[in-house]
Amino acid sequence: MAEMLRESPYPMVSIAEATATIMAQARPLASEEIEAFSALGRVLAGDITSPEDIPDVPKSAMDGYALRAADGLTPRRVVGELTAGGAAAVMLAPGEATRIMTGAPLPPGADAMIPVELTTERDGMLYIQRELQPGDYVHVVGQDVRRGQTVLTAGTTIGAAEIGILATLGITRIPVYRQPRVAILATGDEVVEPGSPRPAGAVRDSNRYALMAAVREAGGIPISLGIARDDRDVQRQAILHGLDQADVLITSGGVSMGTRDLIKPLLAELGTVHFGRIAFKPGKPTTFATIGGKLVFGLPGYPVSSLVSFEVFVRPALRALQGDASPFRPQIEVTLAEPVRPSPDRPEYQRIIVRYQEGRFTAVTTGSQSSSRLLSLRGANGLLLVPAGDTVYPAGSTLPALLTGPLIV
Amino acid sequence: MAEMLRESPYPMVSIAEATATIMAQARPLASEEIEAFSALGRVLAGDITSPEDIPDVPKSAMDGYALRAADGLTPRRVVGELTAGGAAAVMLAPGEATRIMTGAPLPPGADAMIPVELTTERDGMLYIQRELQPGDYVHVVGQDVRRGQTVLTAGTTIGAAEIGILATLGITRIPVYRQPRVAILATGDEVVEPGSPRPAGAVRDSNRYALMAAVREAGGIPISLGIARDDRDVQRQAILHGLDQADVLITSGGVSMGTRDLIKPLLAELGTVHFGRIAFKPGKPTTFATIGGKLVFGLPGYPVSSLVSFEVFVRPALRALQGDASPFRPQIEVTLAEPVRPSPDRPEYQRIIVRYQEGRFTAVTTGSQSSSRLLSLRGANGLLLVPAGDTVYPAGSTLPALLTGPLIV
Repeated sequence: MAEMLRESPYPMVSIAEATATIMAQARPLASEEIEAFSALGRVLAGDITSPEDIPDVPKSAMDGYALRAADGLTPRRVVGELTAGGAAAVMLAPGEATRIMTGAPLPPGADAMIPVELTTERDGMLYIQRELQPGDYVHVVGQDVRRGQTVLTAGTTIGAAEIGILATLGITRIPVYRQPRVAILATGDEVVEPGSPRPAGAVRDSNRYALMAAVREAGGIPISLGIARDDRDVQRQAILHGLDQADVLITSGGVSMGTRDLIKPLLAELGTVHFGRIAFKPGKPTTFATIGGKLVFGLPGYPVSSLVSFEVFVRPALRALQGDASPFRPQIEVTLAEPVRPSPDRPEYQRIIVRYQEGRFTAVTTGSQSSSRLLSLRGANGLLLVPAGDTVYPAGSTLPALLTGPLIV
Repeated sequence: MAEMLRESPYPMVSIAEATATIMAQARPLASEEIEAFSALGRVLAGDITSPEDIPDVPKSAMDGYALRAADGLTPRRVVGELTAGGAAAVMLAPGEATRIMTGAPLPPGADAMIPVELTTERDGMLYIQRELQPGDYVHVVGQDVRRGQTVLTAGTTIGAAEIGILATLGITRIPVYRQPRVAILATGDEVVEPGSPRPAGAVRDSNRYALMAAVREAGGIPISLGIARDDRDVQRQAILHGLDQADVLITSGGVSMGTRDLIKPLLAELGTVHFGRIAFKPGKPTTFATIGGKLVFGLPGYPVSSLVSFEVFVRPALRALQGDASPFRPQIEVTLAEPVRPSPDRPEYQRIIVRYQEGRFTAVTTGSQSSSRLLSLRGANGLLLVPAGDTVYPAGSTLPALLTGPLIV
């Protein structure tokens, strides 16, 4: 029997040190040009400037009449009708007005318009109730966007409004950062496929599927490497196969101190292990390495440790690889709605439900915080950072928390 | 020339009335069974109960030794090694211990385990430093999930944790509500495709592409119906074509009072118009109809009105059609970082950037709130609800806001 390790050879790093080490390696991937209207969720790799003024000609801001302000309150002869899409051939003479619809170009000769609600039209004559200034109700050239103006900046995540802005300007292709391809390898002789028969005592591989979903949610492209049994050569082969196709490799399990925990020595052999332990619960054995410039995360096998370590350490890296200017989840201060017991030896991220009520955030935990209890992540929209210690935080205390999902009110 | 309407024949409804009217029609669509691991973002259509206990046998919670608590502090003879995936054939006799790895089933005869850090092993004998109780460091049957327990409830949106829970239980197919198919029709003679040459004065169709992205973000499946020119028969045909393939139809433009605004009469002819005006800025002419049980939204043509009306009125309906138990965006109270001028006649949703700083939400608007200025949506993560009135709200006032994007800190 191989000797059983009493203590990990890896020094314990703090959460902040671990984060800084990872982020220093997570530089944006190359950019690529894609169709702008399929870019939802992608991150811009360059600034976008407007090639033109919007609007490009003076336009009517409402439905009504185009006219000359200098004509004062004198009734005008109505000489036609201009629609947004119609030709604007008419030249407006003094004493004339023309019907004009929202968005229609102002005809030559006109310098203002009046909304239909402020007018009467009778027998081809227009009567208006108040004097106008030139420019009234006119949507002037460049009012919305000026030619040459920077409308979107690199690092912006593309949403519906950004797609609208690009379409308005006729910009149909944009540079975005490449999405990270993230290979995920489950390990362990006890691990079986969720759809296969399960021998007594064996566990189904939930981590790989949960991590694939989390990678997708973070904007990455997950690649499943299946389950590798606890054999050095099998795992080595699977890691190399994953690195061939991916920018990031995540392993699940095999990072504790058990005799079958083979991941850390393999990563050390293939590349550089930057840290192999974090003063952090749940997920102390979380390991970070680089192999040929690619990022490798060795996550613990317990389901909760796996997803919480992903959220805290892997997700910001995946956002940074995509060039996101704001890769971190927002951190807020929450008021505890119930007492919270810290872990004596390590800072702990407890899974919580954050509500916004009566002007403040309140937090309740999601029940037992055991690392194996995946149900503790059900419904959680936050992670409460509880410093290590022996003293219970009473209800009403405030602590920092990461907001990981939509706020509940 | 047709007469120019002075006043809309449609009564003005409040935001609350409009919302209630829409939500009364937005009942969940049928459910379908899909592969659980591809269900990210979908909404569960039934409760999920566990078919088994997790764990199914007592297991070691850490790396260490399995033993009998009753042996007290007496040194034990080490008789073997159990891994999580190995066979547990050994029967532990009094005075014996076996090495055991995290997650390995406890062998028969053992009733507790001790973590390796609290032990010494020398010459085949195990020395422990403190007495144990039966059950210590043992992960007992059903500790994480009990057989028959409801683990997920109908109306839950599936995230990474939910996928992990399903995989753990071996549940590979789940019932979810169908995603709404949402057909989107742009209208207007002045509207051209973003990739086509643009005659002077014409505008590119930004709304359809922005709305398609917004539909996708809301969990729907967008269907583009292209651009219909301002012709009654063309638009009628396009609406019918859209209703043939979709659960929801959104039209863009053609709902003002201009002579080319054809949508409202068409919807009234084909179905029931529930309302045709909302006391709301930007987006007063927003129209809601049902045709043969399908939902139809007539959104204004101004880009900002289009997206804000979508956010406030259409998005909750799309979430409700998917069975989401929480279809609305969270509403919070924000402190104004700058004065805000209300609209005199209508409540207004102003586009804001919400930051969480020093324990409270602060809001700044995104500049000019003109309905045509799509840039006012750039970077916005909230909509400030400003009641109608003549009095400026000074900096430091608080007003309600919808949180429409991630919090900025």
